[in-house]
Amino acid sequence: MAQKPSVPKGTRDFSPEEVAKRNYIIQTIKHQFGLFGFQPIETPSFENSSTLMGKYGEEGDRLIFKILNSGDFLKKVDEKVLQHKDSQGITSQISEKALRYDLTVPFARYVVQHQNEIDFPFKRYQIQPVWRADRPQKGRFREFYQCDADVVGSASLWQEIDFVQLYDAVFSDLKLNGVIIKMNNRKILSGFAEVMGAKDKLIDFTVALDKLDKIGEEKVKTEMLSKGISEASISKMQPLFELTGTNQEKLEKLGGLLSGSEEGTQGVKELQFIFNAIESIGLKSSKLDIDVTLARGLNYYTGAIFEVAAPEGVAMGSIGGGGRYDDLTGIFGLKGISGVGISFGLDRIYLVLEELGLFPESVNKGIKALFINFGEKEALYATKAIKQLRENGISAALYPDASKMKKQLNYANKSEVSFTVLVGEQEMNNNKYTLKNMISGEQESVDYSTMESILKS
Amino acid sequence: MAQKPSVPKGTRDFSPEEVAKRNYIIQTIKHQFGLFGFQPIETPSFENSSTLMGKYGEEGDRLIFKILNSGDFLKKVDEKVLQHKDSQGITSQISEKALRYDLTVPFARYVVQHQNEIDFPFKRYQIQPVWRADRPQKGRFREFYQCDADVVGSASLWQEIDFVQLYDAVFSDLKLNGVIIKMNNRKILSGFAEVMGAKDKLIDFTVALDKLDKIGEEKVKTEMLSKGISEASISKMQPLFELTGTNQEKLEKLGGLLSGSEEGTQGVKELQFIFNAIESIGLKSSKLDIDVTLARGLNYYTGAIFEVAAPEGVAMGSIGGGGRYDDLTGIFGLKGISGVGISFGLDRIYLVLEELGLFPESVNKGIKALFINFGEKEALYATKAIKQLRENGISAALYPDASKMKKQLNYANKSEVSFTVLVGEQEMNNNKYTLKNMISGEQESVDYSTMESILKS
Repeated sequence: MAQKPSVPKGTRDFSPEEVAKRNYIIQTIKHQFGLFGFQPIETPSFENSSTLMGKYGEEGDRLIFKILNSGDFLKKVDEKVLQHKDSQGITSQISEKALRYDLTVPFARYVVQHQNEIDFPFKRYQIQPVWRADRPQKGRFREFYQCDADVVGSASLWQEIDFVQLYDAVFSDLKLNGVIIKMNNRKILSGFAEVMGAKDKLIDFTVALDKLDKIGEEKVKTEMLSKGISEASISKMQPLFELTGTNQEKLEKLGGLLSGSEEGTQGVKELQFIFNAIESIGLKSSKLDIDVTLARGLNYYTGAIFEVAAPEGVAMGSIGGGGRYDDLTGIFGLKGISGVGISFGLDRIYLVLEELGLFPESVNKGIKALFINFGEKEALYATKAIKQLRENGISAALYPDASKMKKQLNYANKSEVSFTVLVGEQEMNNNKYTLKNMISGEQESVDYSTMESILKS
Repeated sequence: MAQKPSVPKGTRDFSPEEVAKRNYIIQTIKHQFGLFGFQPIETPSFENSSTLMGKYGEEGDRLIFKILNSGDFLKKVDEKVLQHKDSQGITSQISEKALRYDLTVPFARYVVQHQNEIDFPFKRYQIQPVWRADRPQKGRFREFYQCDADVVGSASLWQEIDFVQLYDAVFSDLKLNGVIIKMNNRKILSGFAEVMGAKDKLIDFTVALDKLDKIGEEKVKTEMLSKGISEASISKMQPLFELTGTNQEKLEKLGGLLSGSEEGTQGVKELQFIFNAIESIGLKSSKLDIDVTLARGLNYYTGAIFEVAAPEGVAMGSIGGGGRYDDLTGIFGLKGISGVGISFGLDRIYLVLEELGLFPESVNKGIKALFINFGEKEALYATKAIKQLRENGISAALYPDASKMKKQLNYANKSEVSFTVLVGEQEMNNNKYTLKNMISGEQESVDYSTMESILKS
């Protein structure tokens, strides 16, 4: 019966230390979400397959975890499908539910389903795990948390301005100074394609441009050519490759470059509005950076595009991202609801904080006081003090067994207990507690109220 | 493309109000878990099927949600199995993973897998969802949270004493006074069977006895008879049906009744020890009640058995339960680790608090201050004040659009905002903010620091 137990690949156990560190990040994010006026919702871990399938492209459909129907699920399956061992064909016949792939589509489903109970603009946040049958690799898991905040029901750019500040507030609270909040606008990318005379090549163009950082100007141009974008079109875009300077300088150059496109001009105007407001309000520790090569999530973003990079010198992909989508709920039949949202990458933020040593020391402390167990009578006496300490907000416990002193102190050390408390017969007779500081090793004999105030500090 | 969206049966969306109320319960439980020295762990939502299957009996196996393998999962399936449409036979060939069914088996797996990193006694808590393909009905869901605290690595009865106090502490914090913490001991039940001369009928005996509350003495006896327990055996047990009085009186009667059974006597001794300690320590608002008809989870409990009932007058099944198991990790090859744990029933506690009106009013308030949007210039001005308020821990936001005043105030009302703040041109010129209390309707014009202190209080 004995098995060698393990977790499925791509999934993880989290130890008390890891949970404490993850909760530190999550609580910081939640706290700011609350201050910014976002309210939490939760949706089920699995959805009807029809809710998820077809929403993430063909690749996405493949990566969605499907749940097998219960009972005699083969009973009604087509004979033919079975004979041909048609895995794809049989899936929808033996599986009606699937695990959540992201938080965005379930949110859209939620908004449509509960539209009559919701007051718009609706500001919600959601921090829950999602699952993807991706090939696991370093930093990529099959189960991971997403932390999303979205507003639906307003097209106002003040939301974008709020999100820039929200990123800044969270990363400042985490002491992660110097993150770069990159912004672009889908309308600027459309404008480029229009000015180039390659409106139908928008996706190919942006996919290539997105790689500028990684593969450089020449290779980007080669890729564009190979996708059928003409040399003449590309040369019109030359200024794009030389877009340097301050944000204001970039905006002015973009304005000139896109003056022939109404949509592009609108995109520049929107970015300028956001940039002006942020300049005037100020950021605590982050930097706003206009980056027109940014094209993430182009499938559904229609306005602003966000991406957050770790501070310079930390090699890590994006630690956050988001954007505006004009018709997310349209897939479920509710048209004309504009939304904008951002996401925090919990796992990557964790790695960055770990690398930079930014987790507070207090984040995973053991309990404040472990009472040494000297036997029944002493344990009962200790238990009464423990009860009183807990009622005053101090974590405390009794070592359960009257083991050798060395074993008990050893346990206290390993569990990072702050103080051990020794109560033997003598202490009981004098109403005293011997407190041992587990870091300094100092020991003193005090009455209950002194003990409580030492443990409280 | 438009679909009428819904969630799978037995699952739920949680609105901001529901999340806030659930979090209130969870935070209360977590806080006490921490004070008692329990540390959080998390395990993956799905486990290898081999970890879960066979651990919950045949019925349990059926109720475990299985996850379909990815890719061409039919490729390697037996032709025969397909031909015979053998749903049960094919399951293990097309599914290798399954959703967590409870938190206990994954915890046992965790302890065995990480035994070299763990310092025993290991006190862990875990608050995560579990999934069961049960027929949904009132109060029974296919996805629900479990909140478990367990200690493994010590046989000390001080743990049981701690768990009684933990229940008392949590329910007292929730202002749910008068819950009844029922205790029994598996050894007492074994003792009964032994004294009756029906050791081999232990399960039948306890299953019948467990129904005493519901079906009454006569029907319990009839059921015992029908299971082959003799009339003579049953009549030996007559005092059991008349076990009334205080806990101390019950313990004394039990001591006499079980004097012929070593195991039974040991069970009475254990209960007496726990009862004495709790009598001496005292409980804040709960009542400890010895109930020898209690037999839950008999499959793996070997010592103490706990069950918590809502206060008298509230019709609700148990709102918590647990017990001691001497060999939980044995199923994964680690023998001789005694454990004891308890669980809180989140959904039922929620229903009880709702029924008794015990959720604090503050639990789901909207933000503190909503700034009315009068246009670009005013919005920018407001945004600076909002930033400062948030930095001082006050939740605040700008209404995103410069809509009609009535619409904005309406939204503020519906969202349960405490104050609206009006900043028009006049206020800007005088560095003032007009604060409107949304409950009293009172309005006053104040400077920033007065506003901050009003909003803080």
